[in-house]
Amino acid sequence: MSHDNFPDRVPPQPGLKGVLDALKYGPDGLVTVVAQDARTGEVLMLAHANREAVEKTLTSGLMHYYSRSRRKMWLKGEESGHVQKLVSLAVDCDGDALLAKVRQVKGACHLGFRSCFAFRIAKDGKTKVVGRKVFDPGKTYGKKG
Amino acid sequence: MSHDNFPDRVPPQPGLKGVLDALKYGPDGLVTVVAQDARTGEVLMLAHANREAVEKTLTSGLMHYYSRSRRKMWLKGEESGHVQKLVSLAVDCDGDALLAKVRQVKGACHLGFRSCFAFRIAKDGKTKVVGRKVFDPGKTYGKKG
Repeated sequence: MSHDNFPDRVPPQPGLKGVLDALKYGPDGLVTVVAQDARTGEVLMLAHANREAVEKTLTSGLMHYYSRSRRKMWLKGEESGHVQKLVSLAVDCDGDALLAKVRQVKGACHLGFRSCFAFRIAKDGKTKVVGRKVFDPGKTYGKKG
Repeated sequence: MSHDNFPDRVPPQPGLKGVLDALKYGPDGLVTVVAQDARTGEVLMLAHANREAVEKTLTSGLMHYYSRSRRKMWLKGEESGHVQKLVSLAVDCDGDALLAKVRQVKGACHLGFRSCFAFRIAKDGKTKVVGRKVFDPGKTYGKKG
């Protein structure tokens, strides 16, 4: 038994409050979230969530994150319409990272790619765009966001 | 053009140094790394890397991370033998997160699961072990590591 491990911190019948309590938030109050396409397995993006965003994600079924630059919770797709519907949520062994399997409308990336991980890095440092463009960000966003 | 975006920070012929310079390290000097099974698409773990760990990963072909608790770079599998061979590396649009597709020996999780994301969280907060046990951590580690 070690309280470093998530399963040892979860009470037997946690309820939503119990499981939110058992997550390990960083000094900034955030956990890391990986969003993965539930159908294809493609990793779409990495973002952060505060306790409120995790709760809102679970209760609404739509991915909510916390923007470190804007310092507030946001609904993914609130401007673009490219929401992510939650299919399932998992937490890792130490409880500081979440894996969300989602149905992504159009694309996750603000540059217009399906996945934010659009740039391959080779061993010699050469980079290559490998992402699939699925929308025109100029037409989708008033500004980057 | 915005220097918030990774592609705008990469010089035309970056080389390894150029691409390491273009990554966006946090105040702690770290980027976030998602390791994904290259064959099955299963997300295996989330960890962090400093510049040295990213470089070592690319040059050695084995995943290296930075342990925030032990405050040093580590070779994944150095104690357990459960190394991760790098298949391909991608970076996201803002350059602060990496996606490593890997071949994982045995399991990624120190609790003995194939993936660290072994615990499902339901909307009502109920948790369930969904991970696949692939080794006995008591026999693999002298201590947790």
